[in-house]
Amino acid sequence: MLNPQIDVYMGCDCPFEQAETVLFGAPFDSTTSNRPGTRFGPSALRRESYGLELYSPYQDRDLSDCAVLDSGDLELSMGSSELALADIEARAEEILSAGKRPFLIGGEHLVTLGAFRAVHRKYPDVAIIHFDAHTDLREDYLGVPLSHACVIRRCWELTGDGKIFQFGIRSGDRAEWRWGKDHVTCHPFDLEGLEDVVKRLGDAPVYFTVDLDVMDPSVFPGTGTPEPGGVSFDALRRAVTLVCSRCNVVGCDVNELCPPFDQSGVSNAVAAKVVREMLLALSGGN
Amino acid sequence: MLNPQIDVYMGCDCPFEQAETVLFGAPFDSTTSNRPGTRFGPSALRRESYGLELYSPYQDRDLSDCAVLDSGDLELSMGSSELALADIEARAEEILSAGKRPFLIGGEHLVTLGAFRAVHRKYPDVAIIHFDAHTDLREDYLGVPLSHACVIRRCWELTGDGKIFQFGIRSGDRAEWRWGKDHVTCHPFDLEGLEDVVKRLGDAPVYFTVDLDVMDPSVFPGTGTPEPGGVSFDALRRAVTLVCSRCNVVGCDVNELCPPFDQSGVSNAVAAKVVREMLLALSGGN
Amino acid sequence: MLNPQIDVYMGCDCPFEQAETVLFGAPFDSTTSNRPGTRFGPSALRRESYGLELYSPYQDRDLSDCAVLDSGDLELSMGSSELALADIEARAEEILSAGKRPFLIGGEHLVTLGAFRAVHRKYPDVAIIHFDAHTDLREDYLGVPLSHACVIRRCWELTGDGKIFQFGIRSGDRAEWRWGKDHVTCHPFDLEGLEDVVKRLGDAPVYFTVDLDVMDPSVFPGTGTPEPGGVSFDALRRAVTLVCSRCNVVGCDVNELCPPFDQSGVSNAVAAKVVREMLLALSGGN
Amino acid sequence: MLNPQIDVYMGCDCPFEQAETVLFGAPFDSTTSNRPGTRFGPSALRRESYGLELYSPYQDRDLSDCAVLDSGDLELSMGSSELALADIEARAEEILSAGKRPFLIGGEHLVTLGAFRAVHRKYPDVAIIHFDAHTDLREDYLGVPLSHACVIRRCWELTGDGKIFQFGIRSGDRAEWRWGKDHVTCHPFDLEGLEDVVKRLGDAPVYFTVDLDVMDPSVFPGTGTPEPGGVSFDALRRAVTLVCSRCNVVGCDVNELCPPFDQSGVSNAVAAKVVREMLLALSGGN
Amino acid sequence: MLNPQIDVYMGCDCPFEQAETVLFGAPFDSTTSNRPGTRFGPSALRRESYGLELYSPYQDRDLSDCAVLDSGDLELSMGSSELALADIEARAEEILSAGKRPFLIGGEHLVTLGAFRAVHRKYPDVAIIHFDAHTDLREDYLGVPLSHACVIRRCWELTGDGKIFQFGIRSGDRAEWRWGKDHVTCHPFDLEGLEDVVKRLGDAPVYFTVDLDVMDPSVFPGTGTPEPGGVSFDALRRAVTLVCSRCNVVGCDVNELCPPFDQSGVSNAVAAKVVREMLLALSGGN
Amino acid sequence: MLNPQIDVYMGCDCPFEQAETVLFGAPFDSTTSNRPGTRFGPSALRRESYGLELYSPYQDRDLSDCAVLDSGDLELSMGSSELALADIEARAEEILSAGKRPFLIGGEHLVTLGAFRAVHRKYPDVAIIHFDAHTDLREDYLGVPLSHACVIRRCWELTGDGKIFQFGIRSGDRAEWRWGKDHVTCHPFDLEGLEDVVKRLGDAPVYFTVDLDVMDPSVFPGTGTPEPGGVSFDALRRAVTLVCSRCNVVGCDVNELCPPFDQSGVSNAVAAKVVREMLLALSGGN
Repeated sequence: MLNPQIDVYMGCDCPFEQAETVLFGAPFDSTTSNRPGTRFGPSALRRESYGLELYSPYQDRDLSDCAVLDSGDLELSMGSSELALADIEARAEEILSAGKRPFLIGGEHLVTLGAFRAVHRKYPDVAIIHFDAHTDLREDYLGVPLSHACVIRRCWELTGDGKIFQFGIRSGDRAEWRWGKDHVTCHPFDLEGLEDVVKRLGDAPVYFTVDLDVMDPSVFPGTGTPEPGGVSFDALRRAVTLVCSRCNVVGCDVNELCPPFDQSGVSNAVAAKVVREMLLALSGGN
Repeated sequence: MLNPQIDVYMGCDCPFEQAETVLFGAPFDSTTSNRPGTRFGPSALRRESYGLELYSPYQDRDLSDCAVLDSGDLELSMGSSELALADIEARAEEILSAGKRPFLIGGEHLVTLGAFRAVHRKYPDVAIIHFDAHTDLREDYLGVPLSHACVIRRCWELTGDGKIFQFGIRSGDRAEWRWGKDHVTCHPFDLEGLEDVVKRLGDAPVYFTVDLDVMDPSVFPGTGTPEPGGVSFDALRRAVTLVCSRCNVVGCDVNELCPPFDQSGVSNAVAAKVVREMLLALSGGN
Repeated sequence: MLNPQIDVYMGCDCPFEQAETVLFGAPFDSTTSNRPGTRFGPSALRRESYGLELYSPYQDRDLSDCAVLDSGDLELSMGSSELALADIEARAEEILSAGKRPFLIGGEHLVTLGAFRAVHRKYPDVAIIHFDAHTDLREDYLGVPLSHACVIRRCWELTGDGKIFQFGIRSGDRAEWRWGKDHVTCHPFDLEGLEDVVKRLGDAPVYFTVDLDVMDPSVFPGTGTPEPGGVSFDALRRAVTLVCSRCNVVGCDVNELCPPFDQSGVSNAVAAKVVREMLLALSGGN
Repeated sequence: MLNPQIDVYMGCDCPFEQAETVLFGAPFDSTTSNRPGTRFGPSALRRESYGLELYSPYQDRDLSDCAVLDSGDLELSMGSSELALADIEARAEEILSAGKRPFLIGGEHLVTLGAFRAVHRKYPDVAIIHFDAHTDLREDYLGVPLSHACVIRRCWELTGDGKIFQFGIRSGDRAEWRWGKDHVTCHPFDLEGLEDVVKRLGDAPVYFTVDLDVMDPSVFPGTGTPEPGGVSFDALRRAVTLVCSRCNVVGCDVNELCPPFDQSGVSNAVAAKVVREMLLALSGGN
Repeated sequence: MLNPQIDVYMGCDCPFEQAETVLFGAPFDSTTSNRPGTRFGPSALRRESYGLELYSPYQDRDLSDCAVLDSGDLELSMGSSELALADIEARAEEILSAGKRPFLIGGEHLVTLGAFRAVHRKYPDVAIIHFDAHTDLREDYLGVPLSHACVIRRCWELTGDGKIFQFGIRSGDRAEWRWGKDHVTCHPFDLEGLEDVVKRLGDAPVYFTVDLDVMDPSVFPGTGTPEPGGVSFDALRRAVTLVCSRCNVVGCDVNELCPPFDQSGVSNAVAAKVVREMLLALSGGN
Repeated sequence: MLNPQIDVYMGCDCPFEQAETVLFGAPFDSTTSNRPGTRFGPSALRRESYGLELYSPYQDRDLSDCAVLDSGDLELSMGSSELALADIEARAEEILSAGKRPFLIGGEHLVTLGAFRAVHRKYPDVAIIHFDAHTDLREDYLGVPLSHACVIRRCWELTGDGKIFQFGIRSGDRAEWRWGKDHVTCHPFDLEGLEDVVKRLGDAPVYFTVDLDVMDPSVFPGTGTPEPGGVSFDALRRAVTLVCSRCNVVGCDVNELCPPFDQSGVSNAVAAKVVREMLLALSGGN
């Protein structure tokens, strides 16, 4: 059920029937292995959006021209990943079956699996563009297969080889990196090569998952597992604009904002601005 | 010389064979419904212990005279309460079967269930003295029965009526309070009546569980769900000394220290001092 | 106009027509002379309310039985006290003219003046019960008469002598204290004498204004001007319950929660619980 | 009047009569619409200056060779922008009429208007070089024309078209951007094009206003409205050195340092170093 | 030499010649064994004083009637206790030889030794009233005799037995407590018995040293070694008023405020108010 | 199973006899002149290492293949630099005489002197590669020669001219910079020229000292004296990899991590990752 305490992203009050994109939040972090708190991400991101403007001078577009609804947060069951994922999947399903694009705000990265299950059912040959600091390709983490550290591996079990394109990856254990070489396409360290992948994907349906820790912790300290050496805000901004305006994005998510670990609030603003640029690019096409 | 501090409570380096009490930590908080972070409690509590002294002028006793081992933290599986509880239960079992008293440091309050399962198996008629701000008597929380908000209810399923004595309780939903009236003995708001309960229990085996949020948040802000109106440090100190020196405590725990929400570090010091007074009282008897 | 970003106090979703009490927030702090940030108070208080329960064991009542609407925050003009006060007054007027009780959540203490103007127009002989650490009786503050430091003086200009009853006051300059002796009834330092005042007021209309800094900063550090030596949470809880259940409270407010200066979040929880106890007592009578 | 509690920028103790540049602080933030606290900027910036050195290896100059007085902070009336601006204007006037250069430290950006009014009276054809993340070109903000969000628009009312050169701008609503196209020269996103403007201005009198949020929030998180995508410290350092050493700067200011939102203190150090480089460049010429 | 960066306690600007009491700060913490940062205490305490009022309703006195000078901070040599103590001693000597009362603001507790050496030279039979959580009676700390943990032991070497009266002590190792029994008068845990000591001391010269950690950490979290179980602000306020108004206080200090560990700023306010009440009581007699 | 984490850097549990490199910590900061707290650096760095992986994709190496022991922290005497340096020197001596490489984790930069004394005794012609924001070349600091601000000067007294190569320096007083020109090789502002120095040094023994404040404070805010304008994490990562893989590093240290001033914890992660890359490069050679 939807949580009655609603924080809405600025300007995203399009009626459901007319909305092309529907935001929803998944405040869940039960499997986080390092620093918890991404449960507070979805509401912090929205509140901070009011410190920004509807208008983007980068794209010369304005959110007031876009058909987006922010439908609030799911109320998820802490301590039960299966229940939480089922609720997320059901919500994404609901949005997809109405012909709209689900845009999930996490939460820890595991939430992606819920949305992706629904997207994959509708688009069985969907590809994944994955921005992250971490490979997230483990078979299990301390015996737990439904873990944030395994989420892309779980997605791969649905897509099979050749469908997952990773960017910005700079951490993982040796086994993950080796496994990844055979099963996914990994562009390590930065976002180089994205334009080629976007071209190659053409009109194919794409699920776009953005773990915000792909950015350097200087830019985005408010995350569970800060990994030095990431990309700048401007690099990420350009990259998400590219994917969202040029690919056929049928579902997407932004995750791993962990507000308690950035008391300056800057990480919230960064996350909010990434979402604004994505929404504007999704609405505009190329 | 090399510093002996290795995330071990000060002075608790008695060899296992000679130890009467064995500390172990359960850094787990996957079911926390409000503010997570108690996973950092066990190590923060120990590190802060070095700001205190081994000697207590309240009891005129010294930890160096006590037979206590701090055996470190369990490595628990975030996101799987069943796996985590099984590991905790196994560790408590190990300590109990060696004829020693397990002293668990949480972590969220759910960890109590793991230790109590082992204690209850050895002492089927064990009573529970429960200090807390919250009743923790829910049947389930958003569909999850293994939740910190249900932990005393889960214990009651083992003990049955008349075995659980609550103190300091000042929060819960109406249904919990009503259910509690029929099944447990609740002393709300403060620690009044404890002396009577201690007398009544005599030599019966007691499991003593201390949710540190029984203290007022002014004294102990570093906890997941601060509940104004609690007891003072001195009141708690006297009460834990009473229970630990006069009851037959066969197992105990201290939980719900959430360090990220108290950057002054005072909550760590408070928790560490509560543990010191408990250890000294357990070692001394009356 | 009402700010579209709505955070609602738990359980306060009674339709306007049926509500007896209507909450509204005034996120304003332009005249704060020490540490600003009470603008974030109204939304922080509501969000934190979800960490509490609807049920109060102190009063054995439940918010689900009360007719309260939380109508959200006003969007106020920072930098213009006159515009802000006019908006607050208009909203209070609206609530009063529908026969309901306005319950204002600040913001700095100046916001009281807006609500009180409307209340005083409807109830010209209304008395004021004022809980605070500071006298707030200055003629002006650095040349500014519409200042948080002058708000009770501004109210006195409406009520005249003998209508204002202060409790808990422990700070002010010498001139204020001397002026106060002739014009208001001041019970300094604590809440002693409240029962007598409540009896004396009988059924007379009362405006009840609670500056939360009446509490000691150990209990409530998140405020603009912390003043050591205040009352405990329990003392305040009992006092607000007394006023709200026994007096004819025709309007009230709670103010001066300044979240940025208490990163533990405890002050938010304290403020939220004070509001819960007030709402329950207002709904029940004695 | 000058506030007796004086924090002085390191090494800026030249007697008034001999000073070429006179620093003064304006701790004012009543119109801040997002996160307040820039009132603490002027004193935090000075205190942090003692963590730096008088000597700059970038310019190979030393503050001990410069004729600068830091004359302390104005005591401003919170809640009254008109009173505050009048005090700032009077102080700038005093400095200008003694033939010296006023260097204002804010506070929120609105304070610029006070100093600029005095500068513009003495130099009616003065140009403005404006570094900022935000356009600050609104006609009014929620009905308030004297707002930080309108300050450059207020300055434009004095200068008319063609006199204002903006750099680094990356935020504003659509209407502001469109209005700006016709009335000011805007170099968006970064500091490109500055050298050309500096050349074009030649010996014309210039007022230089630096909103520190022109820097990226990773570099400068301690500000009221963090706007991701800004310039680096080194880019800003080079740019302020260029303007201050090559232009005829007749007045300047640095503003929008908001210390409470950067508890690392780094933003204070960044602001202090920007001021040092400006002071050294102003004293040296090219 | 005096540090040119002066923060002055509110209202303490009496010319040196006419001053009865002279404040000076000793921002030193090189021997702190737990959490450093008391070097920031003296300036934080002064800045926060401006959030209070000159007038005390407790004593009905006003600082504007008192003859007090705040002469600023010493610039002390970090890393050399001997140099620092020599500078403190010289400054106290200077004040004493002008017939005034030195009032030292620390810094860590070791600074007391500098001031006390000067006081003891002038008043060889001076007694010490010592408020603290810790005994501070160690012979040395890890081989260092000039340590905060040994400061009262060093003073005892000057006074001999029977001259030191401790209150509020609740921590120390067993050896310290035992040594103390034979050499000093210790009133553990609280401030009981103070009135008797004050009477007994009559007109004898008294040095009064207040380690602010005598207060409970809930009241005063901003200190190097928080020790739960201390006294309330009001208890301390009454006690310092008693000593300062009734004893012949020839020198005094307030120390161990460590601002970085209390980001709420409340500890600064508490310390500032303790100093105000001491200054007013010293100025008034009984 | 019991968690092996005992304040030891991840994966560094090689037995002493087989270790090539031996880590040890020096939690000392008594001479810090600005913001203290680097005493907490060694343990924070280790704990944070568990948020990283043993494997580095940059070098394609894994710590599990390296022969490194982390032997824990020294217990040092706060307030006595001589005692502390003696203990550090003795420990380095012990490691060197066993034919291993000492790797010191500070603590303030003064600790380098202890380790370097031992290294210089064994390798009298050792060169120093020094990364830092500050020259550290003062003769003394406020009369104290054993100060963090003088540490490289103290080292120069051992090496003489021509042996010290500085990189990244951007702060110092004018006298230091001038003195440095004659006695050391300084590459200011960044890490340019390192490759040439590495080539020139060939197989000569090198002591490598990394003051982490060489990085920009946006990347590394948790340090005692943040100095804007530093290098990025990636620049530092590449540079330390170059030195450690190509030079004959006979001893090294990483220092000036000050955790209390970065509550996001990012600085801890950055420091931990720098150490990992150094360890991997040291173990691999070229």
